[in-house]
Amino acid sequence: MITLAVDCMGGDHGPAVTLVACRQFLDKHHDAHLLMVGLPSALNGFTHPRATVVAATEVVGMDDPLEVALRKKKDSSLRVAVNQVKTGAAQAAVSAGNTGALMAVARYVLKTMHDIDRPAIAGWIPNAKGEATLVLDLGANVDCTPEHLLQFAVMGSALVSALKENESPSIGLLNIGEEAIKGSEVIKRAGELLKSASEAGEFNFYGNVEGNDIFKGTVDIVVCDGFVGNVALKTAEGLASMFANFLKAEFSRNVFTKIAAVCAYTVIKAFKSRFDHRRHNGAALLGLRGLVFKSHGSADAFAFEHALNRAYDAAAHQLLDRVDKRITHVASLLHMTSTSAES
Amino acid sequence: MITLAVDCMGGDHGPAVTLVACRQFLDKHHDAHLLMVGLPSALNGFTHPRATVVAATEVVGMDDPLEVALRKKKDSSLRVAVNQVKTGAAQAAVSAGNTGALMAVARYVLKTMHDIDRPAIAGWIPNAKGEATLVLDLGANVDCTPEHLLQFAVMGSALVSALKENESPSIGLLNIGEEAIKGSEVIKRAGELLKSASEAGEFNFYGNVEGNDIFKGTVDIVVCDGFVGNVALKTAEGLASMFANFLKAEFSRNVFTKIAAVCAYTVIKAFKSRFDHRRHNGAALLGLRGLVFKSHGSADAFAFEHALNRAYDAAAHQLLDRVDKRITHVASLLHMTSTSAES
Repeated sequence: MITLAVDCMGGDHGPAVTLVACRQFLDKHHDAHLLMVGLPSALNGFTHPRATVVAATEVVGMDDPLEVALRKKKDSSLRVAVNQVKTGAAQAAVSAGNTGALMAVARYVLKTMHDIDRPAIAGWIPNAKGEATLVLDLGANVDCTPEHLLQFAVMGSALVSALKENESPSIGLLNIGEEAIKGSEVIKRAGELLKSASEAGEFNFYGNVEGNDIFKGTVDIVVCDGFVGNVALKTAEGLASMFANFLKAEFSRNVFTKIAAVCAYTVIKAFKSRFDHRRHNGAALLGLRGLVFKSHGSADAFAFEHALNRAYDAAAHQLLDRVDKRITHVASLLHMTSTSAES
Repeated sequence: MITLAVDCMGGDHGPAVTLVACRQFLDKHHDAHLLMVGLPSALNGFTHPRATVVAATEVVGMDDPLEVALRKKKDSSLRVAVNQVKTGAAQAAVSAGNTGALMAVARYVLKTMHDIDRPAIAGWIPNAKGEATLVLDLGANVDCTPEHLLQFAVMGSALVSALKENESPSIGLLNIGEEAIKGSEVIKRAGELLKSASEAGEFNFYGNVEGNDIFKGTVDIVVCDGFVGNVALKTAEGLASMFANFLKAEFSRNVFTKIAAVCAYTVIKAFKSRFDHRRHNGAALLGLRGLVFKSHGSADAFAFEHALNRAYDAAAHQLLDRVDKRITHVASLLHMTSTSAES
């Protein structure tokens, strides 16, 4: 039996989305149990033999400052959900709440793994191979040392090997040129560290990659600092949204273009399905002593269900143990270099 | 009369593209004169009353190391073209050659403007408003101080006001959240500097923007360091190329989808025209004591002609004087803060 704690109040839509997703998820996973965390009044209508309501008296708003989420709202649904992982009542927590608040609360409640300086946010971006590239960090850490980037590589490798049944996923270091001499001092040093770790058999380092390689699917995992990762993600979202809006407007411009839309229906449908980011919803907060998954705040029930699936898969494949073992294994290398790492 | 020096050998296609573009450009600009720089054997066939061949004996390859471009090939077409600006024979130089080589040679030959620490690459990215957002730096400087970012803002503002007849273009600072408290220490300090300069009337600072704002057209100019700018640009190129390839493949899958492509022709055509990056070709190398424009290496004649247009417009609108005046004007602010700037 896999038990997940769900922050039912989080996200732009709250229970209107999360409850629908939870029911769909339970119907498809017969060995799953859900701890539905939220205001009892909001969850009243939900009954299922494998769901238990866990009461919380507060809700973290999408715009609440970190301070409020962390120090004021101590009985928020977000925090109570993470607490379920801490106490061992659940194997993973899922929330569509504010990313900064979720990371801060998860870090405070669960603590960081031994040998990990900074937890990271690892998310999937659809690629041209019809799969998805894991990118980390997506925004938790704005200034990273080479050692942090090495840790991200180890954690990302553990995640992909756990979820994708790929024991040796390839890792690329995001840079502004493929040559090893390119990039900032931090990136050059990170490249050396990743190369050494790869040669020691810790993971499979491909080398430097560029922004376009995320979409080419050149590697399974792209490692970068949170500032760069966040800009890349938002840039891609912005461009995708611009294209989608333009095509929608053009196809509904007049009766002729509407007919064209009908003709092109199968192509448009294939396009939507292929690049449907909802299928890749559910970013992992890695490096904590417990599994926490973050859904996109604007997720609909289909997308939120995918975040639940991902948390379920991670728990079922013992992701926490895998990350821990990998990190312990690479620890000598990390310790070797920790003299130059920020704490 | 506006005289441009053209590196006819640069880019993936060399004279096969540049000569066609030069002829088209001359036909449309009756007060323009071109100094066609290249191997005489390659330019032999080109004659035009307003074009003069300037011989160069070497060509910088797209993969030549910087050292080779800078120290070995002293009579390369790229360098001879930049030399024409140095001697005053041309008001601007245009090359589709290797970006790193062009920047290094231009910086060596022309030198950096007084009060500018680092030249930057400023390029246009199409946005949802049907216009284009100027983004700088796109890769010349991987590690930037807040003062460098301020200089980029001043130069970007001068460029847009010169070329777009917009005296007060808005400037956004690329960050991972709109709030002023977000981002790295460098970005936070840069935000303060930009705010002060804006309040002093130097330019129009909007505030922080995110990656998606590049495509929304939230601001006219987006300022960032070269690492982040290059990743954003390559990420966008990668996504656009993935979408284009997918649509092409889907529309040619079978006879039905081919019919659909015919039906959807006007929409596809509008889409291609709206987001045709060739129309925005021609990045400016700003902060040098001379005007240099960089065309995309893979540019076709249509795209290369646009790079020529941009150099022509910049020369016609006295871009160099404008940047110089703006930088001198903001110099007190730059000097005020220069104690903390890298040289």
